Amino acid sequence: MHAVRNRANLARSIAQSRALTRPVYAQGRLIRRALATSEAPSAQQASGPSTPPPPPPQSRWRNFLQILGRTTLITLVGTTGAFYYITQRERHPGAQMPFDPEKKTLVVLGSGWGATSLLKTLDTADYNVVVISPKNYFLFTPLLPSVAVGTLNPRSIIQPTRYVTRHKKRAVSVIEAEASDIDPINKTITFADNSEIQGQVSTTTIPYDYLVYAVGAEVQTFNIPGVKENACFMKELHDAENMQRRFMDCVETAAFPGQATEEVDRLLHMVVVGGGPTGVELSGELHDFLEDDLKSWYPELAGKIRITLVEALPSVLPSFSKQLINYTESTFKESKIDILTKTMVKEVKEKSVVLQMPDKSIQEMPCGMVVWAAGNKGRKLTQDLMAKLPTTQTNRRGLLVDDYLRMQGAQDSIFAIGDCTATSYAPTAQVASQQGAYLARVLGSLAKKENLKNMLHQLESSIDQVKGEEEKKAAVAEIESVRNQSAKIKLRPFHYSHQGSLAYIGSEKAIADLPFMNGNIASGGVATYLFWRSAYLSTLFSLRNRTLVGTDWVKVKLFGRDVSRE
Amino acid sequence: MHAVRNRANLARSIAQSRALTRPVYAQGRLIRRALATSEAPSAQQASGPSTPPPPPPQSRWRNFLQILGRTTLITLVGTTGAFYYITQRERHPGAQMPFDPEKKTLVVLGSGWGATSLLKTLDTADYNVVVISPKNYFLFTPLLPSVAVGTLNPRSIIQPTRYVTRHKKRAVSVIEAEASDIDPINKTITFADNSEIQGQVSTTTIPYDYLVYAVGAEVQTFNIPGVKENACFMKELHDAENMQRRFMDCVETAAFPGQATEEVDRLLHMVVVGGGPTGVELSGELHDFLEDDLKSWYPELAGKIRITLVEALPSVLPSFSKQLINYTESTFKESKIDILTKTMVKEVKEKSVVLQMPDKSIQEMPCGMVVWAAGNKGRKLTQDLMAKLPTTQTNRRGLLVDDYLRMQGAQDSIFAIGDCTATSYAPTAQVASQQGAYLARVLGSLAKKENLKNMLHQLESSIDQVKGEEEKKAAVAEIESVRNQSAKIKLRPFHYSHQGSLAYIGSEKAIADLPFMNGNIASGGVATYLFWRSAYLSTLFSLRNRTLVGTDWVKVKLFGRDVSRE
Repeated sequence: MHAVRNRANLARSIAQSRALTRPVYAQGRLIRRALATSEAPSAQQASGPSTPPPPPPQSRWRNFLQILGRTTLITLVGTTGAFYYITQRERHPGAQMPFDPEKKTLVVLGSGWGATSLLKTLDTADYNVVVISPKNYFLFTPLLPSVAVGTLNPRSIIQPTRYVTRHKKRAVSVIEAEASDIDPINKTITFADNSEIQGQVSTTTIPYDYLVYAVGAEVQTFNIPGVKENACFMKELHDAENMQRRFMDCVETAAFPGQATEEVDRLLHMVVVGGGPTGVELSGELHDFLEDDLKSWYPELAGKIRITLVEALPSVLPSFSKQLINYTESTFKESKIDILTKTMVKEVKEKSVVLQMPDKSIQEMPCGMVVWAAGNKGRKLTQDLMAKLPTTQTNRRGLLVDDYLRMQGAQDSIFAIGDCTATSYAPTAQVASQQGAYLARVLGSLAKKENLKNMLHQLESSIDQVKGEEEKKAAVAEIESVRNQSAKIKLRPFHYSHQGSLAYIGSEKAIADLPFMNGNIASGGVATYLFWRSAYLSTLFSLRNRTLVGTDWVKVKLFGRDVSRE
Repeated sequence: MHAVRNRANLARSIAQSRALTRPVYAQGRLIRRALATSEAPSAQQASGPSTPPPPPPQSRWRNFLQILGRTTLITLVGTTGAFYYITQRERHPGAQMPFDPEKKTLVVLGSGWGATSLLKTLDTADYNVVVISPKNYFLFTPLLPSVAVGTLNPRSIIQPTRYVTRHKKRAVSVIEAEASDIDPINKTITFADNSEIQGQVSTTTIPYDYLVYAVGAEVQTFNIPGVKENACFMKELHDAENMQRRFMDCVETAAFPGQATEEVDRLLHMVVVGGGPTGVELSGELHDFLEDDLKSWYPELAGKIRITLVEALPSVLPSFSKQLINYTESTFKESKIDILTKTMVKEVKEKSVVLQMPDKSIQEMPCGMVVWAAGNKGRKLTQDLMAKLPTTQTNRRGLLVDDYLRMQGAQDSIFAIGDCTATSYAPTAQVASQQGAYLARVLGSLAKKENLKNMLHQLESSIDQVKGEEEKKAAVAEIESVRNQSAKIKLRPFHYSHQGSLAYIGSEKAIADLPFMNGNIASGGVATYLFWRSAYLSTLFSLRNRTLVGTDWVKVKLFGRDVSRE
């Protein structure tokens, strides 16, 4: 408070002194100035000491600027310094504790939402941790549609897994490999390096004490003919890059001289299959790309691009409230994105998509590109694992787990989280992420329990050597206390707390379904769009990714999206 | 000047008023303050008008901060505003003049240094311009090694060709296609869309009046076995991305559990072939990546990475001065990059490279990756074109052109620039870029001459209809004047002005060979590195690319390079 008051006083004094003395100063030297400052106040005094003239408006404005300037400077220097300090600390992780043969081995399979959230929360001092994943990075999947149209740089939404593990207490081994076999009886896992460059050793088997199974799911094509061959997907980073390349290829091919009007219309018709958040966001982003960028660079084509969203269910975004679905539909109508609900894809051909319309008629729609964003299915590894425990693992949708996320039938040594499980929760990043954090706490408790058990064992075995009545009493008391401590460690079942659903729908509008008190808040529009941005930014795991995505957004605002077909 | 003086006065007045009045203000109200300001100066006056007390040091510091704050604020607001204005103008090009059937057709083949420089300078009002290139963007090749190690984002060093052409006076047709045939007699060019997605029409032939041939060159492998199959290149954007992926693959494979020490050493041995600027910069960048990033994230491997630079000539960087070559060699020695000069590559195998050493002995070096950055050769299209004019086009190195860059034997209708030509100049971006700008001026002159010729023709054909002695005289004078104007337009031969050679050699050091007066300045070190950066930034064609590259550099400083194998 004192500082603020001083500053206000200061500002006033500056204003006064300047107003009073400037005319003299303009021509003045040092001596004259000294005189001037002594003369000026007397003039003021004459007008009465209780009513000083109000500072002229220009001065007030100047004061304001001065204070604003100082604030800007301080903020700038302060944040730059803090930012630099934090980034440098992140960039240079220190030494870590080595592997400890006494500790149990925890193998984490995967590097997605579940696995990364687990690694962030886990105290690695408790275990020797091995992470195995075919990708050596975490991918922020909800922003894939933004990458697909060039709003974001591909590398802005990934984070090397080592950026997380190198900051943990004990060293974590990160292996870029694909698991090929899990033996839940002997507790071993076999994995192979399937990448282009392989060493002398490219496959190996290691034992585990605990396995966290977080491999996610793969794209569900429902065995519809042509999907695998002719459609783009929206699951991995290369899918998004591939889609961008194909989209620009369609545009460039349409611009080829002498292309017939009908063919141009075909090439510029983009079909998105799947009315979930991914399909809706992709349609919205495609529309933005069209409005913001293609119009400038391909003015002759921009008006001809059509986007169609196909959904088998009666409405898009079934997880959102009716009101928001209507809002999305009307926004899409304004954006000229066609929504076809109750429509099934029967085949994807090279230059068209065959649809079964709501009235069961079959229609072939010519198009340049089909993006498939319709559902997940279990990976082969998951199916193989389930086949090894045929009596307990009976759900075709995925692994069955108990309330503590332990895989059923796997002797409490395998935990499963995320999209590879069959639970009552939707297969979302939010669920996987909460499960990962929960599991990290469970594993911490298990380690603590294990420690206490070992201590107890040691105490019990040494009690016979204790001489004297007093000492014996003390030892028994200690055993009792350790036993109590151990008994107090109780696992609580996993509980999912829904934080809300968000989706971007294009034209700088987003929709949000947020649980509030006992009801829901549904909101849509530009404010929600800003909320969507900030929510995504804050969900990004690292300052690095937040900065990268943030600067990408600024870049697109300034320079637009890149129309190079790279 | 006036402003500066006022500001200085202002600062002094602020300092004084504060020094004098603060103690009273601290407890003061409005009335008291008015009194205080009238009393304070009299105290000062007593000490003599010619020696006002010096402002206390704290105040000076405050003044400084205040002025700095104001300057920061003004600079921030000003530059942000100007920047935003410029970028928005760039993003939203206006309407363009349509194609004019009266104008000649100018076909530009290529979108590299030569073609882009031509397009930038050309007045498109003079021609109907058609650009044909298999890439719809310009690639800033000198920064490819930076992309290969992740210092820069791939998209930061490319610029869609339409970003240039859409800002020209008359509309320019940009076609993403590969030329397959040129008929220099009938003046036609045939091209095809060879990309993944093709329309009904995917090949066509168009006539031209002038053709600017700027297709560049392709990688020269000297038919050495295994180069095409096993080496990475450093010519196109996907080459750099491919190299990054392979490099990270080598690192991840070396990190695979149970890899033998020897195999780890092989996998982490990177061989760069070619001691020109590309090879040297790539070695330097690889070293930086190792020092700055891999050490943090792969501490167990970082010490084991080896880089070897192979060059057939007796020294690296033959175009630089002896002193700078020595500087580079000693820097590389410190960086532990091995240089093998007078060493020829005999074969590139999947896991090794076979070398002929200076003593003619053959040696097989195990390695994880070979990057080939050794020379250019003409494209097939160029060879085909030369074969059509066998009497004049006899140089195997490339197209022969006259002093005005006209292709010899092509009836003055084909111009050739850049790496596809065989001239006395080195095949560098600098030469191609100057040739492009020169050619734009030549084409402008030709158009002017053509206009005057048409005017003359019109005047001459209408002179018979002119009645009256006076009018006839005037018409003859006008004809004479037009004839004079036309005669004045003389083409000057192309003259290359060398601006200097620059190369980054790693460890934040660069070397520069700059022509100065009649001699050369050779400079190396960190200052040269900053010069290298600013020179590259200013050579980038657009504000957009400058900003993207600049922010990438800041990002790497803050967050390091990405070690994801994407």
